[in-house]
Amino acid sequence: MTEQLTIEEVYNASRVLQDVVRHSRLIGPTKLNPDSEIYLKPENLQHTGAFKLRGAYYKISQLTPEEKKRGVIACSAGNHAQGVAFGATSNGIYSLICLPAGAPISKVEATRRLGAEVCMVPGVYDDAYERAVQLQKEKGYVMIHPFDDIKVIAGQGTIGLEILEELPDVEAIVVPIGGGGLIAGLAFAVKTLKPDVKIYGVQAAGAPSMEQSLKQGKRVHLDSVATVADGICVKEPGVNTFELCQKYVDEVVTVTEDEIAAAILALIERQKLVAEGAGAVSVAAAMFNKVPIKGKKTVCLVSGGNIDVTRLNRVITRGLVKTGRNTTLLIDLSDSPGELSGACAVIGEQGGNILSVVHERNVAGTPIASALIRIELETRNADHIQQVRQALTDAGYHVV
Amino acid sequence: MTEQLTIEEVYNASRVLQDVVRHSRLIGPTKLNPDSEIYLKPENLQHTGAFKLRGAYYKISQLTPEEKKRGVIACSAGNHAQGVAFGATSNGIYSLICLPAGAPISKVEATRRLGAEVCMVPGVYDDAYERAVQLQKEKGYVMIHPFDDIKVIAGQGTIGLEILEELPDVEAIVVPIGGGGLIAGLAFAVKTLKPDVKIYGVQAAGAPSMEQSLKQGKRVHLDSVATVADGICVKEPGVNTFELCQKYVDEVVTVTEDEIAAAILALIERQKLVAEGAGAVSVAAAMFNKVPIKGKKTVCLVSGGNIDVTRLNRVITRGLVKTGRNTTLLIDLSDSPGELSGACAVIGEQGGNILSVVHERNVAGTPIASALIRIELETRNADHIQQVRQALTDAGYHVV
Repeated sequence: MTEQLTIEEVYNASRVLQDVVRHSRLIGPTKLNPDSEIYLKPENLQHTGAFKLRGAYYKISQLTPEEKKRGVIACSAGNHAQGVAFGATSNGIYSLICLPAGAPISKVEATRRLGAEVCMVPGVYDDAYERAVQLQKEKGYVMIHPFDDIKVIAGQGTIGLEILEELPDVEAIVVPIGGGGLIAGLAFAVKTLKPDVKIYGVQAAGAPSMEQSLKQGKRVHLDSVATVADGICVKEPGVNTFELCQKYVDEVVTVTEDEIAAAILALIERQKLVAEGAGAVSVAAAMFNKVPIKGKKTVCLVSGGNIDVTRLNRVITRGLVKTGRNTTLLIDLSDSPGELSGACAVIGEQGGNILSVVHERNVAGTPIASALIRIELETRNADHIQQVRQALTDAGYHVV
Repeated sequence: MTEQLTIEEVYNASRVLQDVVRHSRLIGPTKLNPDSEIYLKPENLQHTGAFKLRGAYYKISQLTPEEKKRGVIACSAGNHAQGVAFGATSNGIYSLICLPAGAPISKVEATRRLGAEVCMVPGVYDDAYERAVQLQKEKGYVMIHPFDDIKVIAGQGTIGLEILEELPDVEAIVVPIGGGGLIAGLAFAVKTLKPDVKIYGVQAAGAPSMEQSLKQGKRVHLDSVATVADGICVKEPGVNTFELCQKYVDEVVTVTEDEIAAAILALIERQKLVAEGAGAVSVAAAMFNKVPIKGKKTVCLVSGGNIDVTRLNRVITRGLVKTGRNTTLLIDLSDSPGELSGACAVIGEQGGNILSVVHERNVAGTPIASALIRIELETRNADHIQQVRQALTDAGYHVV
């Protein structure tokens, strides 16, 4: 490490950030895992919808006057962009953010609204990053790294101080990991002040770069990563973050895409909070017993809430299908008048709410005088679906 | 009024509730209305997902030992049920809740989990209410009214104290109204302590019972009410709540169903909070300039977050369609191989993401050798939809 992280630096960051960040209060205890006392640190309620502005703001505030004059540059498809834009504009300096062309328009607009200049780069993240490096060299901007910078890490570490202050008898903290900036700062601060508190990291199974790196004892570069948790879809940990995780993190686990979706749905239904995939992995790990927190007073860090509503809708739909609240029935009808309305009537009597009907004729393998109908309906649960199917069968309909 | 509400009673309720309710912190300032400083009082983050437990718990705590022994009964299809169940169980007494048979299974289960016995009554709310009255007479339970009870009103009034404590220079407070218990208590407390603070009430345009009553100077009974904001879908204000609103509320306005949906979506996207329809009407009124808060430091009370996810999905979808992020195109294809894939390719090139395709043949009025395809796709905004349509037209496709 070129520079050493100190607890004084984290305290300094906390002072600098005091009037800048929202001091998000813990929510809980919740019953997201029935065997532990789970609190949520809701950084999704932070300005810009994520914790990222802590590190970015602190880093920018510590630049020399000469560096500030040059302005800053960053590359990001998401929360870091908004964090840097916020940090730069609040400090009264220029910022340029390179974004890959496919970035969600909502994030592009949010970055612009926060006062940054936006440079859209054709291609994917790596292309945008290369362009940022090139622009930095050409124009002399200061590059703000999303995670592998001691000042950025110190800024994220302030979350650890807040948790210890608000819940002094916390026993475990569960933290999402992408590049590792958040957990590096938090684990350093918490372990320095209270070494007994367990720190668990969580990655998406589709992007387990830190988990693999720790296992192999060296930084691993993954060629291909993919997860709904785009905020932590990172191919390789940082040099500093990897070293800090080796020293201060007790264990890193992974969660599946379905577990992440279930956690997002549970946060919506039970806690009334919107989390993005990356923000929900900590809750997923707690819900599905991936971390040893039984009987422990535990804080799950919900790191951000910037999920595209289109994606949110799909996550909810997946959750609804999974819990039997939305289903699609295929019914083989004799193709004669009155048949469809009869089937719909049976469904209605059973309390099923029809969402859509598609009539399919000419399906290979079915009699010419028949038609398949595909009915999507809202149901109460798996038992209710069974009850609707049974009623249709009893009324003489052939449910495929 | 049989009993007089006093500020001492509200303070007493605040003491009783101190260790029972979550002291939800204000969130903000937000930019939900660009011309005012809008703070949110997030009672959707309250235990049970709504403010209702304040009044219910306080009322139950003040029963005589003899009354407590008899147990309590209530009728509700929603948040009041959970409030009473929570209040009774925490006070160690029996509760029976009558629910209409059509109540969402999630709310029934939540009520049971909170320790209440549940009585499902065939029919609608009014039927459940009649059954509750009958059971109360037969068995001697104490009836807990959802809003028209001085102790219940005092309990809701504690929200007013919390707002004044946390934001002493608040200038206006915007509050949802169903039966009026929440605004009656809040307005009484706030106007007693700080008469200059403006109190605005908001109802759904589909259930404007208090708004109409205040206009006509007498309690109005509406025969038919309907709104997505089921928590405030009330036909008639209470005797006490009406009198208190006449004295202490500055103005009551209404919002449309689309405005409520837009407010729910804005809370999700911009504040990462899930609100139910009733909880979002205050935000809708602020967003759509229904209340005179220009330049004012304003608190919008988000009263609850218990929205069925099925309904939430529909609200999001409506919002997506409205903002051009989801659209359905009808394309008239010559019915020959390769046509569909060609059209899909054009859409893909333009960055449209196809969600579903339905092929329709045999549509009256179309040539026999053609087929209509109905393609649902994700788009970025209205301009993007136009761009996709244009590209299809340029490629020789006939977009209907």
